[in-house]
Amino acid sequence: MFSVVYIICRDMEEAGRIARALVEERLVACANCDVVRSVYRWGGRIEEDSEVSIVCKTTTDRVPEVVKRVKEMHSYELPCITWWSLDGGYQPYLDWVREETLPGHETKGR
Amino acid sequence: MFSVVYIICRDMEEAGRIARALVEERLVACANCDVVRSVYRWGGRIEEDSEVSIVCKTTTDRVPEVVKRVKEMHSYELPCITWWSLDGGYQPYLDWVREETLPGHETKGR
Amino acid sequence: MFSVVYIICRDMEEAGRIARALVEERLVACANCDVVRSVYRWGGRIEEDSEVSIVCKTTTDRVPEVVKRVKEMHSYELPCITWWSLDGGYQPYLDWVREETLPGHETKGR
Repeated sequence: MFSVVYIICRDMEEAGRIARALVEERLVACANCDVVRSVYRWGGRIEEDSEVSIVCKTTTDRVPEVVKRVKEMHSYELPCITWWSLDGGYQPYLDWVREETLPGHETKGR
Repeated sequence: MFSVVYIICRDMEEAGRIARALVEERLVACANCDVVRSVYRWGGRIEEDSEVSIVCKTTTDRVPEVVKRVKEMHSYELPCITWWSLDGGYQPYLDWVREETLPGHETKGR
Repeated sequence: MFSVVYIICRDMEEAGRIARALVEERLVACANCDVVRSVYRWGGRIEEDSEVSIVCKTTTDRVPEVVKRVKEMHSYELPCITWWSLDGGYQPYLDWVREETLPGHETKGR
């Protein structure tokens, strides 16, 4: 089973740093970062800010570790980290996602 | 239970106005707006336009009201408003989403 | 039933070409393209590239054909093509998605 993890970061510097660490540690197979305009309430006021979203593809088995690692690396007190299951995809791509996120491979090919 | 609501708006002005209203009315906890290039058929022709996507995080209970309010505020005859359930996330963030979208809080902290 | 198909393309040229073909062939009702910053491992190295994501809305029935067609048109050996089910949306919009993707309509209105 495969999932998308959707994360919001402070800026592209933080998003790039977190995305690289997740790929490096084989917690996700790939990550797509994008600048967004965010609207939310904080301290009783409506805030509007530029932030950066990350869409990660990984196996559902790896999701709890992804959530834990993103929280550790993130500069926010309360980072937006959410996930949902995929129903499918191009099978050779999904096979690649599985291969890329196998825990036993952590030290290979570096 | 939590969900993503995915909306397409005419431009950043409309997306910002709708996002602020949804957060203000506690229908969603946060909204991320982003310019996209859209392709679709309208009146028998393939159209290509710049539009703006909004990714909202809210509780599944609030989704029907979100859909209704977006339709009311939207300039399109047939706005793209779709949603899907989250499987999970960083629990303190999800707790914050729940807190932010409690209906009884509408008039607090403003 | 309705689904999102999420695709990553080499650049906006490829994304536009694939999006137009999918709409033209009534495999999807609409497609939203967006430049993203991608991070992934390829050939043992962490790569960072600009790519383009496409978010397509279609009926779940059409998804296998969408995956097949995108693979045919895509320049990558192993394109990212993934999909997940929608739980709902603005009903007249979903009705439009169904209408737009009816296989029998392929030659109408052009």
